[in-house]
Amino acid sequence: MFSLSVSDHIMVAHSFADPFFGPAQRLHGATYGVELTVRTPALGPHHVVMDIGAMRDILRRVLGALDYTNLDEHPAFPGRTSTTERLAEYLARSVAQEVAKLPHDAAPPAPAVLSLLLRESPVAWASYEMPLS
Amino acid sequence: MFSLSVSDHIMVAHSFADPFFGPAQRLHGATYGVELTVRTPALGPHHVVMDIGAMRDILRRVLGALDYTNLDEHPAFPGRTSTTERLAEYLARSVAQEVAKLPHDAAPPAPAVLSLLLRESPVAWASYEMPLS
Amino acid sequence: MFSLSVSDHIMVAHSFADPFFGPAQRLHGATYGVELTVRTPALGPHHVVMDIGAMRDILRRVLGALDYTNLDEHPAFPGRTSTTERLAEYLARSVAQEVAKLPHDAAPPAPAVLSLLLRESPVAWASYEMPLS
Amino acid sequence: MFSLSVSDHIMVAHSFADPFFGPAQRLHGATYGVELTVRTPALGPHHVVMDIGAMRDILRRVLGALDYTNLDEHPAFPGRTSTTERLAEYLARSVAQEVAKLPHDAAPPAPAVLSLLLRESPVAWASYEMPLS
Amino acid sequence: MFSLSVSDHIMVAHSFADPFFGPAQRLHGATYGVELTVRTPALGPHHVVMDIGAMRDILRRVLGALDYTNLDEHPAFPGRTSTTERLAEYLARSVAQEVAKLPHDAAPPAPAVLSLLLRESPVAWASYEMPLS
Amino acid sequence: MFSLSVSDHIMVAHSFADPFFGPAQRLHGATYGVELTVRTPALGPHHVVMDIGAMRDILRRVLGALDYTNLDEHPAFPGRTSTTERLAEYLARSVAQEVAKLPHDAAPPAPAVLSLLLRESPVAWASYEMPLS
Repeated sequence: MFSLSVSDHIMVAHSFADPFFGPAQRLHGATYGVELTVRTPALGPHHVVMDIGAMRDILRRVLGALDYTNLDEHPAFPGRTSTTERLAEYLARSVAQEVAKLPHDAAPPAPAVLSLLLRESPVAWASYEMPLS
Repeated sequence: MFSLSVSDHIMVAHSFADPFFGPAQRLHGATYGVELTVRTPALGPHHVVMDIGAMRDILRRVLGALDYTNLDEHPAFPGRTSTTERLAEYLARSVAQEVAKLPHDAAPPAPAVLSLLLRESPVAWASYEMPLS
Repeated sequence: MFSLSVSDHIMVAHSFADPFFGPAQRLHGATYGVELTVRTPALGPHHVVMDIGAMRDILRRVLGALDYTNLDEHPAFPGRTSTTERLAEYLARSVAQEVAKLPHDAAPPAPAVLSLLLRESPVAWASYEMPLS
Repeated sequence: MFSLSVSDHIMVAHSFADPFFGPAQRLHGATYGVELTVRTPALGPHHVVMDIGAMRDILRRVLGALDYTNLDEHPAFPGRTSTTERLAEYLARSVAQEVAKLPHDAAPPAPAVLSLLLRESPVAWASYEMPLS
Repeated sequence: MFSLSVSDHIMVAHSFADPFFGPAQRLHGATYGVELTVRTPALGPHHVVMDIGAMRDILRRVLGALDYTNLDEHPAFPGRTSTTERLAEYLARSVAQEVAKLPHDAAPPAPAVLSLLLRESPVAWASYEMPLS
Repeated sequence: MFSLSVSDHIMVAHSFADPFFGPAQRLHGATYGVELTVRTPALGPHHVVMDIGAMRDILRRVLGALDYTNLDEHPAFPGRTSTTERLAEYLARSVAQEVAKLPHDAAPPAPAVLSLLLRESPVAWASYEMPLS
């Protein structure tokens, strides 16, 4: 099994409506370190899991739509529910949609698995993993 | 599949009785960086893997019982056997026992898997992974 | 010359009024990794630069007043001017005031210098350094 | 499930023949941070996954054969194909061959899995995972 | 005293002519993590040490001229003398020339000091520091 | 001004006699990450601050005398006073003595400054800096 990973980051504001989150109900923010990994059992014709340039561009494009924004106003997190887990899931699915549009040459050979990990502080991180179809 | 991780650390003394360990038979010590991860296939009602505050509290409580001690005197490691692997296993099981006592609201949805990784130096680390029942 | 350092972090929202900041004029946020260093030419009676427990407590108390807040509403940054540099200066001065209140036993021997560094992302950080009186 | 990991690094030159790689067709180089992990469901008689000293020695010996060289001249990467993925696969297989020669006392209990991860820059890494027979 | 830092990286090949360097006389390569710091005693009108966007662009432009190249062919390092120290000096001076061309609004207030640090492996790094005129 | 740095680590046990240290009066231990830096205003004939191979060997030799030991039994720390600051001072002075014995070719050009930093945990570190004569 092979894997390929790239990293990037975003800086966003958000808050939580649910009293479960205590002080994080207040408007605050985070720098999320973002680590995207794709796993495949074999390599493609170029001896890589996928085109790393395309992988970085997709990640930047998906992150760029959220960077320097307030997630409380984003339709993907209704009712102020942008937990690190939900954000990882949203970003992973958004990246997966873009990877599915890549030319065969740049895409990972099937069956591939994608995981997206978010580091929210030096002491906390979360991830979401899904198959790529 | 979702994951949530938190980190902490402890500073302990220990030694090994087994000649297999060479110079580490002498009394020495370590700062263990500790990384606790819980994985679940779905999120609970609060859109999280589990209550991260409870997770950090449990980890600190379990670590607090060992912090600033000599593991050679701890009953979990009879015969001076506190290898990084055995320490990871002991800490993972201790954390799992505490997670099992959490209210439904704060606990991870079943089936969950717990892993505990110990970084003993910049060039060596070990982990133990187990299902949460 | 000796130095002693401790680290912590905060998660805040903010924005900038000045058009100079481009997309960072929008409400966003950051996890700031915080590194506090005190330098002294000699050690005190306990063979340390200062009481590391007091140092961590002061840093946490100073950070705690900002953690999970929106810096745009904080009086220290009028006109939405909470650049990383200004935030480092504000935190350094706040820590210095608290250090000045410590008993002789816990405080750094004079002349001491304090610096406070903020890591705002994997690729950007800033600091402020000042003498402790 | 237990795991044990060690790390090391190498500094090599290489280039790619395939136009797919754009500017990386030019002769350049990399410092690869190398992370070797072995996983086993149980521990051996010394309460470890395997002899960590032997593990570090094998990794250094395998890396030493490539360190400070030009991978374009290495027979394992014909046609200048030393992608991070192929290099990880080559190193993993080379390590596996050496682990298979270890005395029972130092080797991991079966069934074991080996993975080798290469960090090529702060924003990109790749790995290869295989069973140890 | 304030400081502002940004980071980036390059991947290059090189070798040393001087027998002093042992195995590093062979053609090899490195990923250099690059950390650029500017220090000023006061902040400019925008409450920053300098325009961080301009700082990152200058660093990338200066690094871009070396990225994916063989330093043995670069005129700045005649006789294959691209030690980490000389490379840091060359990059610092190149960045300083570009900073000197910035509009007053984006440049650091005088007197400013620039330092450039290169991380060549997990266990070795070097830097060069100079005044900005 | 140039600098060159190398890193290594040690694993030791120790305790403190002084009640000032609270729970650290108990026998415990630490992994110290060790960072050694030498600064010189100019480079020597080989375009380096000093011979990095000699620098790493000296650091390892000095650390090797303490590695896997109990600092409470070491004559450099009478009365159980091995604070991170005192350990940094002891190691810096030991390294400086060894650097003074190097052939002119391998040594740093005068005037040189040496600093030694010890990372005792992810949240605490200390250093000692001294001139090299």
